[in-house]
Amino acid sequence: MDRPASKAVGLAPNRLETLADGIFAIAMTILVLELRIPESTSPDDLWPELVKLGPRFATFVISFVVLGVYWFAHHQTFYFLVRVNRTLVWLSILFFMGAALVPFVASILGAYYLHPVALSLYGLVLALLAALGYVIWWYITGDRGLVDEKLDPDLVRKVRLWIAIGPLVSVAAVGIAFVSPLVTLLVYLALPVLFILFNPVDRYLEDLRQGAQR
Amino acid sequence: MDRPASKAVGLAPNRLETLADGIFAIAMTILVLELRIPESTSPDDLWPELVKLGPRFATFVISFVVLGVYWFAHHQTFYFLVRVNRTLVWLSILFFMGAALVPFVASILGAYYLHPVALSLYGLVLALLAALGYVIWWYITGDRGLVDEKLDPDLVRKVRLWIAIGPLVSVAAVGIAFVSPLVTLLVYLALPVLFILFNPVDRYLEDLRQGAQR
Amino acid sequence: MDRPASKAVGLAPNRLETLADGIFAIAMTILVLELRIPESTSPDDLWPELVKLGPRFATFVISFVVLGVYWFAHHQTFYFLVRVNRTLVWLSILFFMGAALVPFVASILGAYYLHPVALSLYGLVLALLAALGYVIWWYITGDRGLVDEKLDPDLVRKVRLWIAIGPLVSVAAVGIAFVSPLVTLLVYLALPVLFILFNPVDRYLEDLRQGAQR
Amino acid sequence: MDRPASKAVGLAPNRLETLADGIFAIAMTILVLELRIPESTSPDDLWPELVKLGPRFATFVISFVVLGVYWFAHHQTFYFLVRVNRTLVWLSILFFMGAALVPFVASILGAYYLHPVALSLYGLVLALLAALGYVIWWYITGDRGLVDEKLDPDLVRKVRLWIAIGPLVSVAAVGIAFVSPLVTLLVYLALPVLFILFNPVDRYLEDLRQGAQR
Repeated sequence: MDRPASKAVGLAPNRLETLADGIFAIAMTILVLELRIPESTSPDDLWPELVKLGPRFATFVISFVVLGVYWFAHHQTFYFLVRVNRTLVWLSILFFMGAALVPFVASILGAYYLHPVALSLYGLVLALLAALGYVIWWYITGDRGLVDEKLDPDLVRKVRLWIAIGPLVSVAAVGIAFVSPLVTLLVYLALPVLFILFNPVDRYLEDLRQGAQR
Repeated sequence: MDRPASKAVGLAPNRLETLADGIFAIAMTILVLELRIPESTSPDDLWPELVKLGPRFATFVISFVVLGVYWFAHHQTFYFLVRVNRTLVWLSILFFMGAALVPFVASILGAYYLHPVALSLYGLVLALLAALGYVIWWYITGDRGLVDEKLDPDLVRKVRLWIAIGPLVSVAAVGIAFVSPLVTLLVYLALPVLFILFNPVDRYLEDLRQGAQR
Repeated sequence: MDRPASKAVGLAPNRLETLADGIFAIAMTILVLELRIPESTSPDDLWPELVKLGPRFATFVISFVVLGVYWFAHHQTFYFLVRVNRTLVWLSILFFMGAALVPFVASILGAYYLHPVALSLYGLVLALLAALGYVIWWYITGDRGLVDEKLDPDLVRKVRLWIAIGPLVSVAAVGIAFVSPLVTLLVYLALPVLFILFNPVDRYLEDLRQGAQR
Repeated sequence: MDRPASKAVGLAPNRLETLADGIFAIAMTILVLELRIPESTSPDDLWPELVKLGPRFATFVISFVVLGVYWFAHHQTFYFLVRVNRTLVWLSILFFMGAALVPFVASILGAYYLHPVALSLYGLVLALLAALGYVIWWYITGDRGLVDEKLDPDLVRKVRLWIAIGPLVSVAAVGIAFVSPLVTLLVYLALPVLFILFNPVDRYLEDLRQGAQR
């Protein structure tokens, strides 16, 4: 399916997409500002100081991938949009606020990676992002003339279920953080991998493409 | 109404829009750099230190939404543009300078949130942004061939009144800051909510759209 | 004149423009990170500390406007481009490096605003930007099939003279810094104003437009 | 060859390109944050403190050019793309993570520029970027319907050989760092120059263009 031409009356999605791409690009890149060693480190201590950055580096990688997951989900859901309205703009700005908070919670998690408070703070931001992603998908696929009319209802339902995993698992991880911090950490590691491996929008577009070629 | 095709002679608005989206994205995201706890915080003090971030977090949320309001207003007013000229570029760059100052005044407000000086500094930047927004709308809707010829004069007038609220209320809030800081704080909380709820451009486009469907 | 359709064989200018817009947006916005007061400032000292930021604030404004001048010059010269090649990409990346250095030299100038070394360092970056702007205009308007064939040779010459002012005045200002720092400071204040007021590309496009309407 | 029209079913490359441009623009610009002098520097010490920044400044220049090389390579390989899929998005996000790590390893290299650990850390990030660039080119030119069908197999092979130099030389430089740090430093200086001077994609497009004009 080609991206539907903007026949609709209203604001085109392109500037909201540019803002999204800018905010995700910045949030992903400033994560690296957490990776620093003390200024007065002597050359002999360089290697030990770098080793100490291990947990911060792991948090950098996880957070970069998590932001990548949400950026891609945003990209894929906006693919079907033909126009934006005020409500969608504000839901998106809240979603971007969640993305902008990731460097903050990543900085706390990198320093206190087995602390229940650090883990649950991180999980709350993930849950906020996931919940807003769910609400945005629900909102744009409602009967509001925001998406292409030919959008497959079956895909709408599949994506809704897929996105619902995020908030549910994140909230569960927050609860578990106070019992077993390690399990919560493993959930944060596993969740992005799951979202990378299973992607109903990608499968749908691939199926369409192979159908079109036959 | 579809975005008018660029039949005009001159610079297209797209690069000024990309610069705007970039500056707003960065200003919104670097707000998060204010949210940090002292490096030497012991795990036991993590929770109390995070609680102390409360006022800074509230300032982050307000400032993010305020920048969102001005980004959206910029997006909506530029929707009607067909070309840019030198004067508009320089008015816009001053407007962007106001946006770039928000992280600075937010950082002061987050630390001294009931201090009249911090509150009025914040209000002055809001007033600058709002006044420039007003001047930009007045300039582009003048008889300069910058906007679509079919732009409804009634909408032009409604938006002018709507935008005028911003500078007036901001200046009033600056004055009140020296009498009752709390009232000024509440104004800063209420103002973005008002701009989110009442949006003449959005209503105009929705009316047009429902008219087109009938 | 409408932007010429890309009939040429080769890379379109759009991604180089997006990179330019991104780098200028970031360089302009991170200038604000220089505006900060000491963390331990007591509420009573807030106003005196803000007053001390005066020179840094002035440097922020000048540097924001200077970057705006170069962004706009880049925008205007790229308006006539139909394709980019390797040499132009690398000249541009050097130009962007000059833009990225502005926050560094602004930070030095804000702290040591009458120091000949700080002033000449700032001037050298301005001269680098201006010289690269000159070389880029000379390169793209040469017979390389990079710009629209119908580009007016008279405009090419006028813009070349106009851009040549920048490097000449900047280098002169660097020399003067060691004799009279104040004069150099005033040159840095006056130069962007001159570039804002006199703009041959804008005048050319306005003349074309008024000719087209008659 | 004009950029092929997107006749393919699937996600267009434009948003991944905008994210790439954003991340490279930010990574390139925040390199400048490493260039700072101690806050309490007296005016008399300004010049000596600036001289001490020499190695950091050299690292800034090299890293800016290195990021420029990878941005341009990304631009050139994406030129032939007609659509993106999930695998390509995730390979690209890993590539962007490598780009985002450059400011970190540049900050270490600027402070410890002859230290084998600093040199090999820098080289590992270069090797990661180069290896991912190789994998991305191999992936998109495979029989997956991601690139223009008319893409010259000869160019595909030439670019593959060209990109393979990067990881091989970077890994060699990492090994040499523990024997002769100076040689590794010189390799980091020479590698971007080589990539600037020899560019098969640019030559291919120039040849096509001159063929089209005859």
